[in-house]
Amino acid sequence: MNSAANEFRKDFKIFSAPENKDLVYLDSAATTQRPDCVIEAVSDFYRTSNANPLRGLYSLSIKATDLYENSRKTVADFINAPDSSCLIFTRNTTESLNLVAYSYGMNSVNEGDEIVVSCMEHHSNILPWQMVCRAKKAKLVWLESSDDGVISKEEYEGKINSRTKIVAIAQVSNVFGITNPVSDIAAFAHRVGDNGKGAVVVVDGAQSSPHMKIDVQQLGADFFAMSGHKLCAPMGIGALYGRKDLLDAMPPFLSGGEMIEYVTRESATYAELPHKFEAGTVNAGDAVGFARAVKYLDEVGLENIERNDNNLAKIIMDGFSNIPHVHVIGNSDSAKHCGIVTFTIDGVHPHDIASILDTEHVAIRAGHHCAQPLMQKLGVGSTARASAYFYNTQDEAVRFVEKVSKIRGWMGFKD
Amino acid sequence: MNSAANEFRKDFKIFSAPENKDLVYLDSAATTQRPDCVIEAVSDFYRTSNANPLRGLYSLSIKATDLYENSRKTVADFINAPDSSCLIFTRNTTESLNLVAYSYGMNSVNEGDEIVVSCMEHHSNILPWQMVCRAKKAKLVWLESSDDGVISKEEYEGKINSRTKIVAIAQVSNVFGITNPVSDIAAFAHRVGDNGKGAVVVVDGAQSSPHMKIDVQQLGADFFAMSGHKLCAPMGIGALYGRKDLLDAMPPFLSGGEMIEYVTRESATYAELPHKFEAGTVNAGDAVGFARAVKYLDEVGLENIERNDNNLAKIIMDGFSNIPHVHVIGNSDSAKHCGIVTFTIDGVHPHDIASILDTEHVAIRAGHHCAQPLMQKLGVGSTARASAYFYNTQDEAVRFVEKVSKIRGWMGFKD
Repeated sequence: MNSAANEFRKDFKIFSAPENKDLVYLDSAATTQRPDCVIEAVSDFYRTSNANPLRGLYSLSIKATDLYENSRKTVADFINAPDSSCLIFTRNTTESLNLVAYSYGMNSVNEGDEIVVSCMEHHSNILPWQMVCRAKKAKLVWLESSDDGVISKEEYEGKINSRTKIVAIAQVSNVFGITNPVSDIAAFAHRVGDNGKGAVVVVDGAQSSPHMKIDVQQLGADFFAMSGHKLCAPMGIGALYGRKDLLDAMPPFLSGGEMIEYVTRESATYAELPHKFEAGTVNAGDAVGFARAVKYLDEVGLENIERNDNNLAKIIMDGFSNIPHVHVIGNSDSAKHCGIVTFTIDGVHPHDIASILDTEHVAIRAGHHCAQPLMQKLGVGSTARASAYFYNTQDEAVRFVEKVSKIRGWMGFKD
Repeated sequence: MNSAANEFRKDFKIFSAPENKDLVYLDSAATTQRPDCVIEAVSDFYRTSNANPLRGLYSLSIKATDLYENSRKTVADFINAPDSSCLIFTRNTTESLNLVAYSYGMNSVNEGDEIVVSCMEHHSNILPWQMVCRAKKAKLVWLESSDDGVISKEEYEGKINSRTKIVAIAQVSNVFGITNPVSDIAAFAHRVGDNGKGAVVVVDGAQSSPHMKIDVQQLGADFFAMSGHKLCAPMGIGALYGRKDLLDAMPPFLSGGEMIEYVTRESATYAELPHKFEAGTVNAGDAVGFARAVKYLDEVGLENIERNDNNLAKIIMDGFSNIPHVHVIGNSDSAKHCGIVTFTIDGVHPHDIASILDTEHVAIRAGHHCAQPLMQKLGVGSTARASAYFYNTQDEAVRFVEKVSKIRGWMGFKD
């Protein structure tokens, strides 16, 4: 797939910009780069078809509406949502999760109830649930993982029970890169409880949706949140899939234009799905870009992406295994990393790792990765993280390993 | 200014697209068109400088961060915010107003308090306050206007009092086009109340910010909400200005990445302004476009825009005055319309007006304009609305009037 990686790399103009000529970009778990077809799709919308969708009775607005709603259909199909009206456009995963917390959580969780999250959640899948628990006097329960990032059957079957109203879990950890057994957890969670309705499962798909074929129905996700910018779409557009009966029963989150049927001075009746949850002028331009991005990923082939990510993680992890003082966080199997390799180097602060690599034109992330509770559990303040995507080449992975091997030397250590 | 209008019109590629060659676009109050410099600014960001801002320690991310924060400074300066940390990027006006309602309103309004809105508010400046009033058992109080759209001193001094906690008002009505006396209202509102702190004034600037120089300090706005897409910026980006002491005291609205200092399993401490209110990956691409748009408007000159809008409204209203059965809603002075002319034609449904004009390549809006309480007050279900911007020409205004003059004839009326 290396030839394929090179084949697609040319679609990304940023890598041929003079100032980025030598850049090894290994921070795609933070945000991906955008292929030209996505950038052009957004520009084309503004240059030929721009109007306020949903509102107008004239041709241009109808065209904009069609483009927007077709984009919804494309993104809904990408994750196999049963109905595109269950696909809400949001700004990003964070807004999607907050929408569920405010609109579903605040109206369904009561005193004494429990919300289950995992130890490896991103802050965006922790803080909204802390808010709900605080407001409703509910309890936040944590699923623990082993050191290699695995949440066992015993663990989730022991923590999810009839008090559990919501299970909120990342499909892929942005630190471990591991894929959690979400469909098994969902199947179990759906069986708990006295009324047979079970707990509702909220899946943070920010890190999984770029790397593998998603089927929200097969997964058993009651809600599934994702960000466009993690899979080659513009910033500023994300999505929330929700089970239709749940979305129908939920009150709106943001209120304003578009999401109403009728307003009086006293009250309002709300529009049908999906518009009930899309208040104000919609982000049609970036929605069109989002649809183009997922079509592009289908052209690249998600199975190719998965294979390439695994291949690059293997090169990096095999390389690291030969470098003293470099430690990979999580699973020893590189095929369980979704292209994400989080690591530490003895005696070198992760911030220094990133800064030193930057002088070598290698871009990786260092910090807590918005997962401080996991850092606390691992007993580290921060770590370094390299994350690869299909536009990265084997050669880049090799160069990255080579540079990492020299860091302690540059710092003056005599290994 | 007509030559100037033609001069700038070429910046908007949509008007030279083959399918839009004859288009008379008079729906800028719904959304504006985008000049090429804005479209290119966003594309350039993605082609040369894209990374996740605020997170990275490497050059590309630092560059993205600088571009994002400089965009904030540019937009803050555009409305004369005293400090760019008081300028929060949101998706649009609707999200800005909901942020204030959830984070300020829900935490400062109590039973028996009053929230004052005007009869001409957009739904986005009604529904969030209905929510707060419902939740807090507060009362929504309505400022009435005269038939020509004027809210008198007696009216607001009679309705704003020591029970008033929030006054939420549009600076410019999206139906009347009239400019409300917001600075006078704010000065009065700030004096009411026993503790001398007065009511907090929330200004909906969606329709004013595209058409006139805004100075949030001179205006006396405690909060000011605006949408990028109403002033030539991309969809998906808006702003909220807030007084620093108020923003500092408010709890976050959305929670997740970026907006925290420190997170444990139990709780979190929040980041400083403005990041406290910007959870998740920011929309840097569109923020860069927003900044380019307001710079472009400064290049065009807001005084030129205002003059042109008034000129076109005058041509339209003078023309309408000679057509029997056409009635303009609101003020008879075309200089008080911000380029917005809302009207009805006896015997013709507004939807038919828009649809007939569409066949003549004229794009206007028909409906309730997200202001149903105003429609109810005016005793109409819907109206037609033409809204001009600086890229419209005198010739377009003349052609529009000519076509409107023929509608009843086309419908079979013998006038």
